[in-house]
Amino acid sequence: MTNVGFIGLGAMGAPMAWNLDDAGFDLVVYNRTTDREQPFAEAGVSVADSPKHLTERVDVVCLIVSDGDAVQAVLERDLGILAGLDEETTVVQMSTIGYAETMAAAELVEEAGARFVDAPVSGTVGPAREGTLVGLASGPEGVVEEVRPVLEAMCDPVVHCGEVGQGTNMKLFINLLLGDAMGAFAEALVFGKANGLGVDDMLEVVENGALDCPLFEGKGALIADRDFDPRFPVDYQHKDLSLALDRAGDLGVPLSQTAAAREAFSAARGSGHGSEDMGAVIKPLEAVTDVTVEDD
Amino acid sequence: MTNVGFIGLGAMGAPMAWNLDDAGFDLVVYNRTTDREQPFAEAGVSVADSPKHLTERVDVVCLIVSDGDAVQAVLERDLGILAGLDEETTVVQMSTIGYAETMAAAELVEEAGARFVDAPVSGTVGPAREGTLVGLASGPEGVVEEVRPVLEAMCDPVVHCGEVGQGTNMKLFINLLLGDAMGAFAEALVFGKANGLGVDDMLEVVENGALDCPLFEGKGALIADRDFDPRFPVDYQHKDLSLALDRAGDLGVPLSQTAAAREAFSAARGSGHGSEDMGAVIKPLEAVTDVTVEDD
Amino acid sequence: MTNVGFIGLGAMGAPMAWNLDDAGFDLVVYNRTTDREQPFAEAGVSVADSPKHLTERVDVVCLIVSDGDAVQAVLERDLGILAGLDEETTVVQMSTIGYAETMAAAELVEEAGARFVDAPVSGTVGPAREGTLVGLASGPEGVVEEVRPVLEAMCDPVVHCGEVGQGTNMKLFINLLLGDAMGAFAEALVFGKANGLGVDDMLEVVENGALDCPLFEGKGALIADRDFDPRFPVDYQHKDLSLALDRAGDLGVPLSQTAAAREAFSAARGSGHGSEDMGAVIKPLEAVTDVTVEDD
Amino acid sequence: MTNVGFIGLGAMGAPMAWNLDDAGFDLVVYNRTTDREQPFAEAGVSVADSPKHLTERVDVVCLIVSDGDAVQAVLERDLGILAGLDEETTVVQMSTIGYAETMAAAELVEEAGARFVDAPVSGTVGPAREGTLVGLASGPEGVVEEVRPVLEAMCDPVVHCGEVGQGTNMKLFINLLLGDAMGAFAEALVFGKANGLGVDDMLEVVENGALDCPLFEGKGALIADRDFDPRFPVDYQHKDLSLALDRAGDLGVPLSQTAAAREAFSAARGSGHGSEDMGAVIKPLEAVTDVTVEDD
Repeated sequence: MTNVGFIGLGAMGAPMAWNLDDAGFDLVVYNRTTDREQPFAEAGVSVADSPKHLTERVDVVCLIVSDGDAVQAVLERDLGILAGLDEETTVVQMSTIGYAETMAAAELVEEAGARFVDAPVSGTVGPAREGTLVGLASGPEGVVEEVRPVLEAMCDPVVHCGEVGQGTNMKLFINLLLGDAMGAFAEALVFGKANGLGVDDMLEVVENGALDCPLFEGKGALIADRDFDPRFPVDYQHKDLSLALDRAGDLGVPLSQTAAAREAFSAARGSGHGSEDMGAVIKPLEAVTDVTVEDD
Repeated sequence: MTNVGFIGLGAMGAPMAWNLDDAGFDLVVYNRTTDREQPFAEAGVSVADSPKHLTERVDVVCLIVSDGDAVQAVLERDLGILAGLDEETTVVQMSTIGYAETMAAAELVEEAGARFVDAPVSGTVGPAREGTLVGLASGPEGVVEEVRPVLEAMCDPVVHCGEVGQGTNMKLFINLLLGDAMGAFAEALVFGKANGLGVDDMLEVVENGALDCPLFEGKGALIADRDFDPRFPVDYQHKDLSLALDRAGDLGVPLSQTAAAREAFSAARGSGHGSEDMGAVIKPLEAVTDVTVEDD
Repeated sequence: MTNVGFIGLGAMGAPMAWNLDDAGFDLVVYNRTTDREQPFAEAGVSVADSPKHLTERVDVVCLIVSDGDAVQAVLERDLGILAGLDEETTVVQMSTIGYAETMAAAELVEEAGARFVDAPVSGTVGPAREGTLVGLASGPEGVVEEVRPVLEAMCDPVVHCGEVGQGTNMKLFINLLLGDAMGAFAEALVFGKANGLGVDDMLEVVENGALDCPLFEGKGALIADRDFDPRFPVDYQHKDLSLALDRAGDLGVPLSQTAAAREAFSAARGSGHGSEDMGAVIKPLEAVTDVTVEDD
Repeated sequence: MTNVGFIGLGAMGAPMAWNLDDAGFDLVVYNRTTDREQPFAEAGVSVADSPKHLTERVDVVCLIVSDGDAVQAVLERDLGILAGLDEETTVVQMSTIGYAETMAAAELVEEAGARFVDAPVSGTVGPAREGTLVGLASGPEGVVEEVRPVLEAMCDPVVHCGEVGQGTNMKLFINLLLGDAMGAFAEALVFGKANGLGVDDMLEVVENGALDCPLFEGKGALIADRDFDPRFPVDYQHKDLSLALDRAGDLGVPLSQTAAAREAFSAARGSGHGSEDMGAVIKPLEAVTDVTVEDD
């Protein structure tokens, strides 16, 4: 049995760690604030007092924290992961961070003689609980295969996307498409409402056709209910579209729809909805058109 | 049992008529060219020699022809539907035509003392065969309910969208969203490929996430196979997006993503791919970026 | 000396007719409502009681009315131009109308044995008064040269754009560019204001650089003064951009910036500013960003 | 008389320094490579062997180098400006750099007890020679006024844009508008050409109307001549639009036309024209439409 460490017990990380525990791995957890560790301690899971000490006790270190700066801190600070690494350790970085940040983290880990897997996940808290996140794993074939059982405790499927960095690129790819789809859905709903169509009717038509998908079903119901509590907020979607457009600009790939989508999320930020759920991208459109997409 | 007439035995109309026959309706068919009537005659279905004579023999006349001009011709010519109408007849117009054309057809039918249902369908040949088209019915509640059994022989579900004209508007709504989604998918795939991601990997990630839907599954596989045989060609999608944008402009609803999508389809037309399947919207993007989204 | 008839004494037409009078042409005028004819009558200019009678008395008939329907009416009604034409007459159509309408008008005139020049003008009331409109003349070389002295009394320069229809296309070209430039200017001004820049400073920088032009100088001052009295209203600019995009779509020319500009004008319409000056395209942007571009 | 130092004798900097010399300032120059200093030495202008030694000899240090990294190097390296500063010195930073870089440079200079003016310029080599650059000066009123005579030797006008950072923001504002205008011009020209209009005719119409400006006159002639030698290359314009969109995104200002323009420049990069003049933004549009905008 593999010893697995898990760092970052937030909204996503905690259910992922529980899934590792359920799968029978010998688990050690760590979180920057101890309150998030408490339920694990109570359930008999080992808790480490620093990333360094966690790393010293396991073969595989999984890591999911808020952003690139947090990844850097967990790796590099005095009692950080790097301080506890040896050649047997594999670091599985699962946070959503930029491409350059991923490459920098990989370099640090590999310079320390250990192995690095870039493995962000696609999905929200629901799939995190159910173990059905899409794992976007990248790194050398052999290393990814070794940690596959660990990933499969949290993800289904696990897609091997290529060498280190490609998991991060795949995350940009899917979030670009999500942002575009959300923005287009908002335009379509406002268009339909301005034409006098009923919201329920529009959603029924979408759900019975070629675009039947969880995003439109879920966000359609939330918008109709005027529920904009943040699952994935406008600000995050705006940031991901910006990262994708920056990278596309570097590569000379013109993305005019995606660019229009980004500006729609920018409008939502400008009008004060940045911290609401991504469905709030519809609000500036509603304001200019003077309609509200809500249950009839 | 209701006597039902069906006019227009094309790629969509023929399987729809067979479904009416299978459902046990007393069916009379008509097509402008007699070769399409032949299989029906051989199976014992009545064939009329004109829309007028068909109309005289039935209670409900279903109609699905190529465009607004064809609808007008079938209604108004010497042996057209109008010549055979009486007050007991309901005309169910299922072709995809413009809003103004729908309203004009309704006026002609109602002036003749008969009843009109605006009922375009969403879906392609597959759902037409399986009877799972989405029926976008509109007209007075009572009239739509009377013909519902007829529609349900061809469609599942049948959505009552409101008064006459709203079925047509709903068709614009869903085709707007389809066009936007197709254009966004093309951008995402070219972005991913330019980053070195594998096509199969991208499709697997899409199919296991919040955007899992028949459109992306179907068009993704076709693009990867470089199969651009027309199911729904670029020219048609371009036309539907243009109709939607015209109507949005009339209403003052700004649709910047949809506008960008329309220009992407315009680029596909300009570079000679107008008669290929809508997936060919990816080709100008591939050309400018010098990548091809195909199986690895 | 040429006898010249002038039909349409509106805001543009009246100063154009005065310029013909000043240039010494033997002038006959006609307007649908007689109040606009009064000043001409008082100044000793001949007034005709119908387009037919005007046409019978002159060699060249100039025509500038509100839209394609008005052109058709002036040509075709009982006492219309067509009723008075002979083979010596040249009709110079100067209204801004669609390409198909231009071609239809040309056909009617030429079927009647007379000659047709398509000559819309670019410019507003100021240049109309000063005789510095840009004349966008098209038609057979010889015919255009014959009427050039007439056009030069109203326009400077007169550009011969090609065969009939190309004057109309040139008008679309220049109005497309005007709409794009206006929309871009609005974006830049809101961007600058949101950054805390002064409006006067921004205008000074524009006027001293590579973009120094009458449009930015004029509209910049009006926006800063919050003066949105219609010179060229949002609705007209929206219509011209729509015409250009329709034609571009037919030709397969993708115009993504122009498409974005059209949606910006659409937003201005949707938020109730359609009849204000085109500078009001800035208002929805200001609303979403919560800034006002006005004198400091 | 003020002693003035000038660092950075490139294509822009050299003529700017000559104008300072012509205006009678007691000038000291420095360039990283000595070949650019040679003409100044031959003309009797003092040459310093480091930014430090230059700074020690003057009251005002003007600086125009390639980018933010170069500014940082000139300030901070061993024999850099900071090493030579005293409380009497004013540093006038004229390079085009990012907002954060400007603020960082200002902080370094002010921490050293000296004064900082943020003063990028708008204009190309021609205005640099003629002393008609637009000076976008920002900083405390008194400090800007003190160095105004120095700026006026190189610029006409000098616009005081506000506190430090606003000069940099004004540069983004004007380059955003330039990029949008260039992209729109490209769309209009391809649209016109696809309609069969002559390039010379289009340019004549533009130059006689509300959009008559140096940009369209200059770039129009270059495009017609197929001259894409870099004055201001596609890559630079792409970068400036990206900087502006990033800042707009931070502020929640949606800029959909500007976003479309950026993607047009991205397409030019993707198809291999990044180092050509910004007019090459027209090339991907020409390719997709199969027309060439060139002299007839």
